[in-house]
Amino acid sequence: MSDTSRPVLAQMPAAVQAEVAATRERVARLHAELVRYELVIWTAGNVSERVRLESGSDAPELFVIKPSGVSYDELTPESMVVCTLDGTKIDDGTPDRLTPSSDTAAHAYVYRHMDDVGGVVHTHSTYATAWAARNEPIPCVITMMGDEFGGEIPIGPFALIGDDSIGQGIVETLRGSRSRAVLMANHGPFTIGSDAKDAVKAAVMCEDVARTVHIAHQLGGVVPIAPEHIDSLFDRYQNVYGQRAQDGKD
Amino acid sequence: MSDTSRPVLAQMPAAVQAEVAATRERVARLHAELVRYELVIWTAGNVSERVRLESGSDAPELFVIKPSGVSYDELTPESMVVCTLDGTKIDDGTPDRLTPSSDTAAHAYVYRHMDDVGGVVHTHSTYATAWAARNEPIPCVITMMGDEFGGEIPIGPFALIGDDSIGQGIVETLRGSRSRAVLMANHGPFTIGSDAKDAVKAAVMCEDVARTVHIAHQLGGVVPIAPEHIDSLFDRYQNVYGQRAQDGKD
Amino acid sequence: MSDTSRPVLAQMPAAVQAEVAATRERVARLHAELVRYELVIWTAGNVSERVRLESGSDAPELFVIKPSGVSYDELTPESMVVCTLDGTKIDDGTPDRLTPSSDTAAHAYVYRHMDDVGGVVHTHSTYATAWAARNEPIPCVITMMGDEFGGEIPIGPFALIGDDSIGQGIVETLRGSRSRAVLMANHGPFTIGSDAKDAVKAAVMCEDVARTVHIAHQLGGVVPIAPEHIDSLFDRYQNVYGQRAQDGKD
Amino acid sequence: MSDTSRPVLAQMPAAVQAEVAATRERVARLHAELVRYELVIWTAGNVSERVRLESGSDAPELFVIKPSGVSYDELTPESMVVCTLDGTKIDDGTPDRLTPSSDTAAHAYVYRHMDDVGGVVHTHSTYATAWAARNEPIPCVITMMGDEFGGEIPIGPFALIGDDSIGQGIVETLRGSRSRAVLMANHGPFTIGSDAKDAVKAAVMCEDVARTVHIAHQLGGVVPIAPEHIDSLFDRYQNVYGQRAQDGKD
Repeated sequence: MSDTSRPVLAQMPAAVQAEVAATRERVARLHAELVRYELVIWTAGNVSERVRLESGSDAPELFVIKPSGVSYDELTPESMVVCTLDGTKIDDGTPDRLTPSSDTAAHAYVYRHMDDVGGVVHTHSTYATAWAARNEPIPCVITMMGDEFGGEIPIGPFALIGDDSIGQGIVETLRGSRSRAVLMANHGPFTIGSDAKDAVKAAVMCEDVARTVHIAHQLGGVVPIAPEHIDSLFDRYQNVYGQRAQDGKD
Repeated sequence: MSDTSRPVLAQMPAAVQAEVAATRERVARLHAELVRYELVIWTAGNVSERVRLESGSDAPELFVIKPSGVSYDELTPESMVVCTLDGTKIDDGTPDRLTPSSDTAAHAYVYRHMDDVGGVVHTHSTYATAWAARNEPIPCVITMMGDEFGGEIPIGPFALIGDDSIGQGIVETLRGSRSRAVLMANHGPFTIGSDAKDAVKAAVMCEDVARTVHIAHQLGGVVPIAPEHIDSLFDRYQNVYGQRAQDGKD
Repeated sequence: MSDTSRPVLAQMPAAVQAEVAATRERVARLHAELVRYELVIWTAGNVSERVRLESGSDAPELFVIKPSGVSYDELTPESMVVCTLDGTKIDDGTPDRLTPSSDTAAHAYVYRHMDDVGGVVHTHSTYATAWAARNEPIPCVITMMGDEFGGEIPIGPFALIGDDSIGQGIVETLRGSRSRAVLMANHGPFTIGSDAKDAVKAAVMCEDVARTVHIAHQLGGVVPIAPEHIDSLFDRYQNVYGQRAQDGKD
Repeated sequence: MSDTSRPVLAQMPAAVQAEVAATRERVARLHAELVRYELVIWTAGNVSERVRLESGSDAPELFVIKPSGVSYDELTPESMVVCTLDGTKIDDGTPDRLTPSSDTAAHAYVYRHMDDVGGVVHTHSTYATAWAARNEPIPCVITMMGDEFGGEIPIGPFALIGDDSIGQGIVETLRGSRSRAVLMANHGPFTIGSDAKDAVKAAVMCEDVARTVHIAHQLGGVVPIAPEHIDSLFDRYQNVYGQRAQDGKD
């Protein structure tokens, strides 16, 4: 059943295989954070991570993503699916029935077009999706949001699954913003990061600020933060603190 | 004390007894999902599943349902009650004091009138019940809802317990909709599925979209999804993905 | 240090001591339900239960209540405080520093004036307290509320701690209602029951309907249930189902 | 790598070292309460406690605080950072890479200027931060708030991280209030207490009343409590009950 023209994981260099194994372990484990922070229900959310290759390696670029339709309780490192950057599963030793997440094409598009992205997360977390249903960006009115996102969390276009339109919408919207999160219209948030853990952190923070700013607006009269103060918060958090503590905020 | 005119489980063919035992185990376990997703409190929600019979079997049609007034912590496969499709408990080896859920008549009505339904769930989950208190259907404004329900989640009539009016309201409303969930007016959601797990998934998704769409409306200006896009989402999710991954969404 | 004029538990009949021990065990354990259903934080809520005596017993009437200022994690049967119906701790073998809950006077007043009450619960659960802050009864717009409370959950008067005014407000309000829950103005809910478990169930249900009805009202247009239908729901649930399954709702 | 001009913990008197060890244990453990009550996500909140010294001790004043960028799951007593009251880490045996929380300067300012403060907590808890985003104090409309805070929870000024302006804003606002909590504008709550546990209790209660009062206002018509009643509640809770049960409310 396997396609002999596709790269076969077992024939790749040992260093690549070891990196894939480590990535699978991380990606499997990080899904538990989506559950812990109540960003997902049933099987409706996914994490992926680009496999880090030695510079100069001629191995194909790969990423690891959740299998489709497997519940979070049952995820194991071995069940994580390995794909090339065109979004196709390679023969990675998992059973053929373990197909990659139905959002794989969107993840792959991001990896192909944003070289510095090492991890991608997609959820339908409640408050972020509510802003998305109104096609409304989340305004930056709390300092934590200035620290993390450097301004508003933008809205991406409405796009149907099935081709590259979701991936294109994510990439185009994020390129016009300092934010690591985008709310795809009527759909939900996608977040990016330097690795999967960083993208998960962005997903957790995105829902947290979506909720807090929503609740702030419920009683009216939210006070904006001046743009120069947002710049100051973002600059300090990303640069000054970035050198000392990698997942900094506390 | 047992009614000798009623079927007795212990005298049925071994294959039926084995299927009943497997169904009891599934139904008991699935109640834990209602608790996990916070769809129920105390004893206020129930799951049932139709017992699958070999085609051509002349055994009576049966379903398995939660006993009345037993807390979720104490549910065991053995305490699940076996009923015929008229909603009457058979002599199934459980003590006489274990009567079936007070909603049994509604479940039975659905099984009698919808042949393809294999599982039914009833809860009073918070957000779905809030829409029900306004007698207002949940509009389809997020893609997950298009995927799962193919449009709005409809309102069923107000009906009192005690006869077939709840069951009739469920069946009539669902027959006029693509949705697997109905909000009975001033009461709460009932969901159906191909089996009990599928109906539980529908109950989880129903509350999730009820919450997200509620929150979206709190700040006004929700953007609808075009009907042809809803058709496209539903068609793809039910058909294309349906062949690959049975509990698909991720 | 003990007051020799007060009854001393160790000198009471063995049957009373056994009943006190069983009551302590139940009351200690039921506080965990307040935590599980998120009705309380820190030490801010309490359960009590009247000690059941043989009819004709000449032992003094007693009830068991949470000690003041002890966190829910640390509660043990032995730390539960035994009081007479005037709200005074008896010499029950617990250290003198374990004083009864600061709400003991209100519980005692209810036991003195409502003979059929076997359990009392007080919380500051979020949604019920929000209705109380508006001095607004919770209208009966969902069937579960008709089943459990037979109509609206009423508001009691504003009363300060320190004398019998809280107890009086509870008793006067509940006597004019079918409800087992009262929202003391700007304070929070008190619930009663045939025993402590039944009062805890009323506290859980009170917060659940307070939340659901609040959320229903957030988007306007809640549809009332006709009074005769509320009567029918309450009557059936309390009488027909009451004979079959004591904690019925499912 | 250590700065020889800074005090070195290992050379301090044994009694100080023992007190530091006990404080580290308490501070590490109390962070779990922030998680339990859902006041924090990721690493975004911190607890500190002043080290209690014998009166007349000539040891430098110290406090213990969370390390920056370490997740709550990984906190241990040994990883807690020891600082002098100018907010500088001393050579306390922890690796150099464990720097104190980025909010350390604000904690230090409070300890320098408020002698009776033994503990400080900072979170971005959802509802309190929502009031802060509107620069709106939380009005005292429930008795629990009168008990705990003696009136409204005030708003502090907008202040950027990097100098003493956050600390100054906290101290100036709290000096003008009976409240142990202040909502720093567009930022989040800081709470103080006689020790770290007391400050954590204030953080838990602050979020609880922020949530309840928010929800009360959502449907309009909140009824205020008369100022003399607030005085009575606060006085009784702080004084009468204070002598009997230190963390009293129940």
